[in-house]
Amino acid sequence: MSDQDNQSTQVAAGLGRVTINFTPSNQEFRVPPGVSVFDAASWNGLAIDSTCGGHGTCKKCKIQVLEGEVPISRLDIRAFTPEQLKDGWRLACVARANSNLKVDVPPLATRPKAATVGVGRQVILRPGVQKRYVELTEPTLHDQRTDIDRLRDATGDLEFEAELAVFRTLPTVIRQSNFKVTAVVVDEKLIAVEPGDTTEQNYAVGIDLGTTTVVATLLDLVTGTPMAVKSMLNKQQPFGADVISRISAAMMDPQAGPLMQKAALDTFNELIAEVCTEARISAQQIYALSIAGNATMVQLLLGVDPEPVGVAPFITASQKWPTMSASEIGIDVLGTARCYLFPSFGAYVGGDIVAGVLATGMDRDKRTRLLIDVGTNCEIVLTNGDTILSTAAPAGPAFEAASIACGMRAADGAIEVVQVKDGELVLGVIGDATPIGLCGSGLVDAVYALNKAGLLDNSGRFVTDDEAKQIAPKLADRLITRAEGDRAFVLYGEGETPVFLSQRDVRELQFAKASIATGWRLLLEELNLKDDDVQQVLLAGSFGSYLSPTSAVGIGLVPKLPVMRIVSAGNVAGEGAKMVLLSDTERHGADALLDEVTYVELSDRPDFQEKFFVELALPS
Amino acid sequence: MSDQDNQSTQVAAGLGRVTINFTPSNQEFRVPPGVSVFDAASWNGLAIDSTCGGHGTCKKCKIQVLEGEVPISRLDIRAFTPEQLKDGWRLACVARANSNLKVDVPPLATRPKAATVGVGRQVILRPGVQKRYVELTEPTLHDQRTDIDRLRDATGDLEFEAELAVFRTLPTVIRQSNFKVTAVVVDEKLIAVEPGDTTEQNYAVGIDLGTTTVVATLLDLVTGTPMAVKSMLNKQQPFGADVISRISAAMMDPQAGPLMQKAALDTFNELIAEVCTEARISAQQIYALSIAGNATMVQLLLGVDPEPVGVAPFITASQKWPTMSASEIGIDVLGTARCYLFPSFGAYVGGDIVAGVLATGMDRDKRTRLLIDVGTNCEIVLTNGDTILSTAAPAGPAFEAASIACGMRAADGAIEVVQVKDGELVLGVIGDATPIGLCGSGLVDAVYALNKAGLLDNSGRFVTDDEAKQIAPKLADRLITRAEGDRAFVLYGEGETPVFLSQRDVRELQFAKASIATGWRLLLEELNLKDDDVQQVLLAGSFGSYLSPTSAVGIGLVPKLPVMRIVSAGNVAGEGAKMVLLSDTERHGADALLDEVTYVELSDRPDFQEKFFVELALPS
Repeated sequence: MSDQDNQSTQVAAGLGRVTINFTPSNQEFRVPPGVSVFDAASWNGLAIDSTCGGHGTCKKCKIQVLEGEVPISRLDIRAFTPEQLKDGWRLACVARANSNLKVDVPPLATRPKAATVGVGRQVILRPGVQKRYVELTEPTLHDQRTDIDRLRDATGDLEFEAELAVFRTLPTVIRQSNFKVTAVVVDEKLIAVEPGDTTEQNYAVGIDLGTTTVVATLLDLVTGTPMAVKSMLNKQQPFGADVISRISAAMMDPQAGPLMQKAALDTFNELIAEVCTEARISAQQIYALSIAGNATMVQLLLGVDPEPVGVAPFITASQKWPTMSASEIGIDVLGTARCYLFPSFGAYVGGDIVAGVLATGMDRDKRTRLLIDVGTNCEIVLTNGDTILSTAAPAGPAFEAASIACGMRAADGAIEVVQVKDGELVLGVIGDATPIGLCGSGLVDAVYALNKAGLLDNSGRFVTDDEAKQIAPKLADRLITRAEGDRAFVLYGEGETPVFLSQRDVRELQFAKASIATGWRLLLEELNLKDDDVQQVLLAGSFGSYLSPTSAVGIGLVPKLPVMRIVSAGNVAGEGAKMVLLSDTERHGADALLDEVTYVELSDRPDFQEKFFVELALPS
Repeated sequence: MSDQDNQSTQVAAGLGRVTINFTPSNQEFRVPPGVSVFDAASWNGLAIDSTCGGHGTCKKCKIQVLEGEVPISRLDIRAFTPEQLKDGWRLACVARANSNLKVDVPPLATRPKAATVGVGRQVILRPGVQKRYVELTEPTLHDQRTDIDRLRDATGDLEFEAELAVFRTLPTVIRQSNFKVTAVVVDEKLIAVEPGDTTEQNYAVGIDLGTTTVVATLLDLVTGTPMAVKSMLNKQQPFGADVISRISAAMMDPQAGPLMQKAALDTFNELIAEVCTEARISAQQIYALSIAGNATMVQLLLGVDPEPVGVAPFITASQKWPTMSASEIGIDVLGTARCYLFPSFGAYVGGDIVAGVLATGMDRDKRTRLLIDVGTNCEIVLTNGDTILSTAAPAGPAFEAASIACGMRAADGAIEVVQVKDGELVLGVIGDATPIGLCGSGLVDAVYALNKAGLLDNSGRFVTDDEAKQIAPKLADRLITRAEGDRAFVLYGEGETPVFLSQRDVRELQFAKASIATGWRLLLEELNLKDDDVQQVLLAGSFGSYLSPTSAVGIGLVPKLPVMRIVSAGNVAGEGAKMVLLSDTERHGADALLDEVTYVELSDRPDFQEKFFVELALPS
């Protein structure tokens, strides 16, 4: 802290986040406080035994807390002896991570018949990829059945047509393996015939294709467990930070579209190579992929011109996509691997949101729930337990921090938490580093904290220096007027390179949150609901999940509700992507959502502007 | 003739064939005498008006005979005025070409609803390729239907899923053509969207994929008429003349398979380029292909190892093939064009024969009919009007003339007709040239003529010189003993390079015809039929169609029947290939043949050898 102490700033590493270190795999994840150890592991692709799906009934999700405190719950008392409890044994599904933890995960004891994914969704393992090992009778002059008929007769319960690519290897594989082969069937298509018995090797990759970040999860379809998770920045970044700039790039230069297609494929293929290396499997044993991305990302990936998505009236080529082969798209796994692309509700409520609705089970319970995926383009889904509506709100780049004076991505040195305690500023910084910028969640926190402290009035304007000195004497010095005449609040440092929040930054955030709030407010009106009727708000997406619920309520980004009703839902798109691979039922469920969810276009609503101006204000 | 006169040889150009020159297209075709002008045109891809299919009822197939004689039939009298008859007007369907003709074909008067193909088969035009021109309403914020849904709604009667390749062009094509587009649908797949109204351009190519020769016919699917026909030698020739040598090549050298695949594709692509050039269309407007080939040719084309087809117990990878895209196979037409491959009855009764059965309608009438496709591998199909049987007879290379001392392909200079008239030899030579070799039909003719003349006894042995002088004094001098001690009969020339028929050649032919005769004889027995029960023998294939029926009966290659029952069926595989493109009903009919036709394996029949030895003899 040293030279900053004069500013009375407390900088606390990891404030607002807790770190869980899992042994023996030695994987470390940062999650919002209060998340269960079970969910934290699941979101990050680490398998913990469970058959009930985290509902506290199976008592199989045993872990040992090695460092940190986890209170003993009533369920723990029934599951463990006093000795065990003393040694730190807990059930992962009820063990809330409220401080940094180190926990040991025992090896999986049973082959699960179900996996827990999404927001507490329990998925019965019934993957689309089916494998059958068969020992064929050898042909004779009295039994001249063709290779494919012989195989078909032996795998009696599976109906399939073979792909040309499989015919190209079929006679050779059958004979080289002495007529002992494993058939791989997806969607009634024979996509591979492998020598010998390979039924224990059955893999798939779920991909969350984000505009900013792409996450690939390698799944073992035999056990339902994730084997490796890798993420990287979408290599399309040089063409623009958000979908609109990428569409513009494609419109300006005919080469940009193909280059972005290649960039997306390069991203996929690197990630797939990484997860395969980590899990020590061959990419040729990946038989299925699922891809959850917004409409623009999907069209760019497929080589479909995105221009009509980017300009009014915002038209996509298709809502649904045929199931494609990996080779058709250009993904480096088994060429005949089947690729499922999530459909989209609309041009700006894409496959990532369909995956998110699937993962949150919004279509399956009777509660009134609101899902908000916060980002440059914000997607909103509302259900009253009966009708499900979705819409998009163009929030702009504030949350990605691109247009923020000291904005930066959520990386080491980013201020992600801002609080005022006892009249003084407290900062949470990523990576225990010296603050060098402000990320999205820090921006929301800062505006909320300064509004609450009285330094920002309800119109979003910084108070005068005189007012500041009266209202918040310990912070008033931080209010400065910058060269451009723009006022600002210094969060950290001084001199040449302070990290500050400018008046313009506050305006950016006001525009963004007004857009989002107008969105959910109009949806609430459509269903005749009031704010308080909402029983759960799910904050999703790589940004939304890390938002402080208190600040989100505080600035009016979400309805004014008790903070307990605001839930970090994690990477719901990625969870949905896993679900459709683990279960064909879930895949059909995702497609069925197209009929269940109504897309509401806001841009032509006459009352949109009026409501937007109301929502610009910060709540009093 | 000059220096050959001393041998009393009459060499008659085109003996046993007639030439028809069609104007105004100036196309010239050689056909067996007696073939109708209508069939001759149809086989060679020339369209003549017709709605009845050559049955003499529609009286639309009017032609004008400019040169040559065509007797006036009773139908002609009803169709034409005496003036017209005097000017040479005739109905093409009853105009038999018994001498060289030159005929003028008027332009098509009506758009046909049906086409005549195959052996008198009338096919109602109902092609699998469907085109619909639509003018789409432009999207607005109130009508945000996706491009594909908009198209689907506008083409209400067609159900389809789009291919990825189509999505890649869909948004651009729709907008560049101001929402006026033509949808191209095959098998409920949208394979193209074209700007503007292109419904009048709808093309397909039928391919007869022979081991020796490949024939491509470009069809106009709007009118049902062929636009161009081209043939060339299969570029796989360097790997062997017949399927067994090609399979051996693939077994000896792992590179041979891929090279033969490429050779087949090169053959296809050259032929397609040629027919497109002739018809002045783009290969991108070819939306469907049909391919009729034997099992080995098909597996080589698709890149499927043919080894198991070539060695006992003779196993193919599949009987049926999925409908594939041209790009998958590697054919240079529209990448999404649908390719239909005829299924096969067995390893040696392949898709070419399925196409042949379709073209001859053997499954559709009550007559007892026998189809023989003569070649290195001979395929035989027999129906009693109820049950249909098929089998294969390994005839060996005699008919291709590869193992014949003076053998050559049916090209200029080949003796194709051999007769003994008034005790003297009469030869028919292709191309009005000096004889330089003997082709398959000439071989059959020669053996029959010499057997009939008494120079070959019933065991197939040349008589002694003394016997020859008594039996056939004018021909006896032609019997010689060659250096190897092999006796031979000189057909033409003397000195260093005579064209002769050797004793070994006779034996080769005996083996071939015995194999074939054993085949159909066993099939006849299966159905309890006697030779005389057969009401029609169809001689098919590029070789079989040119066999002299008299000689075929004479040597016992076909059952002993009146010559009128022996019919040259032409290239039935090619005809079948056209039919499935013109009519989806016919395509389903071809697939249905798999259930209707029973394949009989002869190689494991205990009575095969015994019957084979009986059939070796020449009939007395």
